[in-house]
Amino acid sequence: MNERLARVALARLGEPGDLRIAEQVAQLGAERVYEHIREEQDVAGVHTDAAARLHGLDPARELSEAAARGIRFVCPGDEEWPRGLDDLDNVEPVQRRGGVPLGLWVRGPLRLAEACGLSVSVVGSRSATSYGGAVAADIAADLAGHGACVVSGAAFGIDQSAHRGALAARGPTIAVLACGVDRAYPSAHHRLLDYIGETGLVVSELPLGAAPTRVRFLARNRLIAALTRGTVVVEAAVRSGALNTANWAERLNRVLMGVPGPVTSASSEGVHELIRARGAALVARGAEVMELVAPSGDFLVDLPRGPVRASDVLSDRERQVLDAVPAVRPAPPASIARTAGIVESEVSCVLLRLGDTGLVERGRGGWRRGTDPERR
Amino acid sequence: MNERLARVALARLGEPGDLRIAEQVAQLGAERVYEHIREEQDVAGVHTDAAARLHGLDPARELSEAAARGIRFVCPGDEEWPRGLDDLDNVEPVQRRGGVPLGLWVRGPLRLAEACGLSVSVVGSRSATSYGGAVAADIAADLAGHGACVVSGAAFGIDQSAHRGALAARGPTIAVLACGVDRAYPSAHHRLLDYIGETGLVVSELPLGAAPTRVRFLARNRLIAALTRGTVVVEAAVRSGALNTANWAERLNRVLMGVPGPVTSASSEGVHELIRARGAALVARGAEVMELVAPSGDFLVDLPRGPVRASDVLSDRERQVLDAVPAVRPAPPASIARTAGIVESEVSCVLLRLGDTGLVERGRGGWRRGTDPERR
Repeated sequence: MNERLARVALARLGEPGDLRIAEQVAQLGAERVYEHIREEQDVAGVHTDAAARLHGLDPARELSEAAARGIRFVCPGDEEWPRGLDDLDNVEPVQRRGGVPLGLWVRGPLRLAEACGLSVSVVGSRSATSYGGAVAADIAADLAGHGACVVSGAAFGIDQSAHRGALAARGPTIAVLACGVDRAYPSAHHRLLDYIGETGLVVSELPLGAAPTRVRFLARNRLIAALTRGTVVVEAAVRSGALNTANWAERLNRVLMGVPGPVTSASSEGVHELIRARGAALVARGAEVMELVAPSGDFLVDLPRGPVRASDVLSDRERQVLDAVPAVRPAPPASIARTAGIVESEVSCVLLRLGDTGLVERGRGGWRRGTDPERR
Repeated sequence: MNERLARVALARLGEPGDLRIAEQVAQLGAERVYEHIREEQDVAGVHTDAAARLHGLDPARELSEAAARGIRFVCPGDEEWPRGLDDLDNVEPVQRRGGVPLGLWVRGPLRLAEACGLSVSVVGSRSATSYGGAVAADIAADLAGHGACVVSGAAFGIDQSAHRGALAARGPTIAVLACGVDRAYPSAHHRLLDYIGETGLVVSELPLGAAPTRVRFLARNRLIAALTRGTVVVEAAVRSGALNTANWAERLNRVLMGVPGPVTSASSEGVHELIRARGAALVARGAEVMELVAPSGDFLVDLPRGPVRASDVLSDRERQVLDAVPAVRPAPPASIARTAGIVESEVSCVLLRLGDTGLVERGRGGWRRGTDPERR
């Protein structure tokens, strides 16, 4: 029994995120924990429940059967092991769950550690609005375009939009499941998951065949947060499971981001709360996410600004005169001077300068605003 | 010529926000500045432009004519003078404009200083969306309901929605204009302004009859920021004038707040930028604004949360069992135990406890989820 086989076996024993097993493995190594449990006997010489279950397992066969289906088991020490997961060792558990997973079952052509090098999780409500779905897909496509891997949970709503956005941009994407990677949950997403398995990665700490449960979803969320540099929450009502992922991202010192929406939309309420009261960064575009998650200075966002217009570069004096020039019916300099509160001689000079820029033009009996809309 | 009359006269001389006059008045007092300018002569003994203009004024008559129309002039030293305006003395100018106004022309039944005691400006785009308009009105009504005075600029779009929201909640509201308080700009708002003048306040630093210009709008914005404890920007494209008010609020150390919207809406882009890159607080409701502007601890917002459900208070073990109970067709404890990965004897105990809460119920041949939706 080596370390890898012991991890495969132990993963069948408890629920994912079981701190007791994670802590013992961190201290003693999986092999010794496995031996301890296996040899544990009660006074009557009868195998304990856990020991009995370990005896019934054949992890070597489990590995070879998985391999036959293109599924590998990645554990600490492997080249493919993403270092981010080790951060789970130092984090306070949430609802008594946490810890580094024993290993990850992985399906797909990417190398896990490499794909997670610059990765962002995009998560949110299962009952997303069409707005949320569209924005999640846009941001995921943006991120993929900037070379980041999009990680999500393959659920209905925001998760699937995020995966599809990344796939549409031919970018890498990772689905982290709360069931075995050989299962599709929700089953309506089996084709999406197959496609992700062919081009990206499908990942889970649960053994093959395992069904999803609420506890497993909560444990899965810590992996989504830990595998990525930052978590973007697109839509989340105040009780959304996505907030659990946000919670993990915060505890793991990952960048926590939220995409705002209408304040009238219950689907955005949880996100607004993250920004308002939990210090999540507001992001509206993939580039803004990149600026926060990419190594310092690699991505700098241009502040959005409108086109520069001729009228932007006027002096105060020119601006005052321009404001006094009528839009349609030309007015003589004397009348413009009265309106502007400036002496006529100066107004005449300024009008000539403004005429050069096209902002005003001569008409019958005086000056009016320029008619070329491009130059206003 | 006393101080008040000198201020009335000097206000006719330059544009509002003219730092040269504001600084001289702060140093010497309005009376002396008035005398200096009035006596200024060039070598040929001809009056200068400014001196000539002062000679043509009759501030005493201006005051009495205004009074006949129910309009008063409020200046530093008056009981009604809002102390917040004095903060403009210490702030760097924006586009060479700034400074404490010489005085304010005021129309309406409220006492200005008192109304500004707990006041919030709600500003935004003139080309607001229906979303922005509705949210501005809601927040203004909320603020009015909490006893705060809503200050805005009476423009199309967000401004008017804010005023109307406050009026609808029978709350105090102040319109700060970039023209004389005897004028209505935009003219379509003359009835709104009349109504505000009857129940709240219409305020401007411009003399009666003055027309609005771009320079005057920019100068006016500093008053909106200075008169209030905080500024809420509801919708603003990246070049919106509302961002100028936000700029002033920031420089004046007032609370700067933004209401988010869809990231797909250009009308919210400027607001998101304020939150993202300028540290504005995200607010979605009037209560959240109150929490930020009211004296510490006077208003505390309850975090939005969904109703507490029976399933929220389960132990991990109970949760695991509940997850394994089928929704529709009852299953025997042995089958539930297999699914949950827990020994049958324990599962049976847990099922009885869950049965007490209504989360599961006995059916033919076993247990299934409870059918009372209220108790799930």
